[in-house]
Amino acid sequence: MGPSVIIGVMGGADHVSSQALNAAESLGKLIAKEGWILLTGGRNLGIMDVACRGAKEAGGLTLGILPDEKKFATSSYVDIPIYTGMGEARNVINVLSSDVVVACPGASGTISEVALALKSSKPVIAMGFDDKGLFSDMESRCYMHRAQTPEETITLIKKLLQD
Amino acid sequence: MGPSVIIGVMGGADHVSSQALNAAESLGKLIAKEGWILLTGGRNLGIMDVACRGAKEAGGLTLGILPDEKKFATSSYVDIPIYTGMGEARNVINVLSSDVVVACPGASGTISEVALALKSSKPVIAMGFDDKGLFSDMESRCYMHRAQTPEETITLIKKLLQD
Amino acid sequence: MGPSVIIGVMGGADHVSSQALNAAESLGKLIAKEGWILLTGGRNLGIMDVACRGAKEAGGLTLGILPDEKKFATSSYVDIPIYTGMGEARNVINVLSSDVVVACPGASGTISEVALALKSSKPVIAMGFDDKGLFSDMESRCYMHRAQTPEETITLIKKLLQD
Amino acid sequence: MGPSVIIGVMGGADHVSSQALNAAESLGKLIAKEGWILLTGGRNLGIMDVACRGAKEAGGLTLGILPDEKKFATSSYVDIPIYTGMGEARNVINVLSSDVVVACPGASGTISEVALALKSSKPVIAMGFDDKGLFSDMESRCYMHRAQTPEETITLIKKLLQD
Repeated sequence: MGPSVIIGVMGGADHVSSQALNAAESLGKLIAKEGWILLTGGRNLGIMDVACRGAKEAGGLTLGILPDEKKFATSSYVDIPIYTGMGEARNVINVLSSDVVVACPGASGTISEVALALKSSKPVIAMGFDDKGLFSDMESRCYMHRAQTPEETITLIKKLLQD
Repeated sequence: MGPSVIIGVMGGADHVSSQALNAAESLGKLIAKEGWILLTGGRNLGIMDVACRGAKEAGGLTLGILPDEKKFATSSYVDIPIYTGMGEARNVINVLSSDVVVACPGASGTISEVALALKSSKPVIAMGFDDKGLFSDMESRCYMHRAQTPEETITLIKKLLQD
Repeated sequence: MGPSVIIGVMGGADHVSSQALNAAESLGKLIAKEGWILLTGGRNLGIMDVACRGAKEAGGLTLGILPDEKKFATSSYVDIPIYTGMGEARNVINVLSSDVVVACPGASGTISEVALALKSSKPVIAMGFDDKGLFSDMESRCYMHRAQTPEETITLIKKLLQD
Repeated sequence: MGPSVIIGVMGGADHVSSQALNAAESLGKLIAKEGWILLTGGRNLGIMDVACRGAKEAGGLTLGILPDEKKFATSSYVDIPIYTGMGEARNVINVLSSDVVVACPGASGTISEVALALKSSKPVIAMGFDDKGLFSDMESRCYMHRAQTPEETITLIKKLLQD
């Protein structure tokens, strides 16, 4: 395979708009087309599920880091399920294992992942995730970026991977 | 001892104002005076350290959940250090083990703890922690509360413990 | 409190002989009488439960590191329950947080704790735990010790704490 | 890809005989030839490293679950590194994420993985791992199996995957 690039896509499991779901699915496709591996939380819900579906439609490889001890609500679009049995502590693994983290709209789970990513100096791209300025201090340290569309996100990831 | 109550106090390790540090120390004292156990992240820095110092000054019992595998930058005011060797994943333990979580001013680590607490439906009191409205949706579900002073925080904790 | 000593007592949740249960209860008492804190896996079963009961009968302080996210089959003799939500990964915390680990008869869970303790160079005392020589190589590096009775175990702990 | 099969290969990082290393490398090759994904602890040492090398020589896909927060002593034969930052707690993930666990010769780390696998009712094949009968009770419950060679191991895995 050569050295792999892993892009984490985080976002809500429910209460997500169809616009955000469509954007995440497109992002999954574009990630796959770049030959990057897609990493998500692995459940068959919301952003996680559609991003994986997009990546599979484009022939990509998908990795799901699950909170559960064994198969449970695992997305059928996850090629490689990693069962942690650690609940939300798996959020830490999501961000540590991603070269770049993309934050889509979500709630407390997604916010925790953005926070953990910034804590470990991992680059984060907010794609529709509105932090209301909460992370602005970290942003000044250049870890938090913003993109409007999946295409912009891909361009930004490429730039970040070169740094 | 009888059934113990554990109150988690979260907040920044550095870049914290002396006002916030004083408030956290007072809060630690008041928690101890109530006979509650104080839980923090256990390091000898910032909010963690002064909250534990306050609790010890008032004769309380302090619990530190540390990211490290062994003694390292452990607060000297922690009676019972729990070494997890799990880095930031210990933030999950902090919130799951607390009956109520108090959020003092902090940065991404503290934000992750607030997010993880809300994710697990744990009551959170923001004492000087400004979420800029990011968690307001969860607040409408009554998990996020606000207090201006250590005394108000104690009153609120008592109310929450009765629920 | 002054600097606390934490002694971990590990052992089976079920299929444990009454002799082993009695020994663990006595050990819990003796640990409490020394002023040490007792750490166990925290469930209301087997060795964990009786060791905590013994410690409480002697007025000690008991710490339970639980695999669960919240109260579930928690021993009523645990003063301070730490909820990890991490399943068996909590076994790592059990051994890292103990100054000395005592292994009573048990099965795969207990074996994992002995193995993890030796892996992290933590002193282990086998009190009725028969490793059939599996850990003998590590024993030659002096981390695995043996005791026949709770009293012998206490004597050995004192010696190990001085090292 | 279709539904993937993940085979975990565990074993020592050092003090492993060249015979055991050769067998692990052959096993890695055979796992890859079956189209299965190889999972290891991901470090560039001992059984982990050579099993991954074998799998890559045969064009397979390799997954490394690392104890570290970021790249550190990662095997160059790991395609997909999962950084947990959780030290030995990652051993739990190793076994939960494998459909079958193969135990090669090792020390306390390997023993902990065998124990954790049996604890979670995961099938284990001992290939040169001598448990000295310690796990014999569990074996009677059919979770612990034995194989002499990589070929025998593959045959046994196929049988276990059908169960």
